[in-house]
Amino acid sequence: MDTRLSSAIHMLVMIAGAESPMSSAEIAESVGTNASHIRKIARLLKGRNLIEGCQGSKGFVLLVPPEELSLYRVYEAVSDSDGVHVFELHQNPSDRCLVGCHIKPVLTRVFRGIDEAAERELKATTLADCMKKLKIEIEREEQA
Amino acid sequence: MDTRLSSAIHMLVMIAGAESPMSSAEIAESVGTNASHIRKIARLLKGRNLIEGCQGSKGFVLLVPPEELSLYRVYEAVSDSDGVHVFELHQNPSDRCLVGCHIKPVLTRVFRGIDEAAERELKATTLADCMKKLKIEIEREEQA
Repeated sequence: MDTRLSSAIHMLVMIAGAESPMSSAEIAESVGTNASHIRKIARLLKGRNLIEGCQGSKGFVLLVPPEELSLYRVYEAVSDSDGVHVFELHQNPSDRCLVGCHIKPVLTRVFRGIDEAAERELKATTLADCMKKLKIEIEREEQA
Repeated sequence: MDTRLSSAIHMLVMIAGAESPMSSAEIAESVGTNASHIRKIARLLKGRNLIEGCQGSKGFVLLVPPEELSLYRVYEAVSDSDGVHVFELHQNPSDRCLVGCHIKPVLTRVFRGIDEAAERELKATTLADCMKKLKIEIEREEQA
């Protein structure tokens, strides 16, 4: 997964809060990466209709209200996965042993429980929540 | 994290269910890996006093009752981490921009919530739970 979800949330917070469409160069400057990496993430977000490029401008705009945009939808867009996978299964348990023969469905179910817990958190958190937390951070610094 | 947790659970299920101490070679055969990889995991589990090597034998025995051994303790033993980290933060947001400047604590908190959800699941699941699920799998096949 690397840092794509993290960068995508940063990017979407910027797009959502901007007064005019933000370009990939402006976003890249803030995220601390290059514009081509941002364009790659933008393609993934566009693929799920979360943002669109602006006609006649090089900027992006948000297509989903931040209150309705869960981080799970962002995760789905930027990952190539059908869900969160926190832990990987070992692939070659022996089928000549009773444990080896039956461990995969056991671990699959246990690991799915962990993945679902992570997914619930992603589903329960919206882009608007992140923007609110950011506002609090900014105000806290201003008051300090 | 790779597949170390998965292999470690497989290994502990075998050790817990065995009538006599199991050697790294026997465990490796079932896990589908080599004995040196199993010995590496064994060292990590020994480091947390979850298993011990048997005097005068090349096998391992469990030091914690399976009902009391949460998968979180196994995770702690085999990972080099101070907790679960499902997603990584991007490391270089710009401090010349209001979003870039304040996004790290925001994402740290959001990601911690996800990590804690995964950790709760690991803490709520014991080795005994895995052994029970395995027993059900074996019985299901026997009845089929």
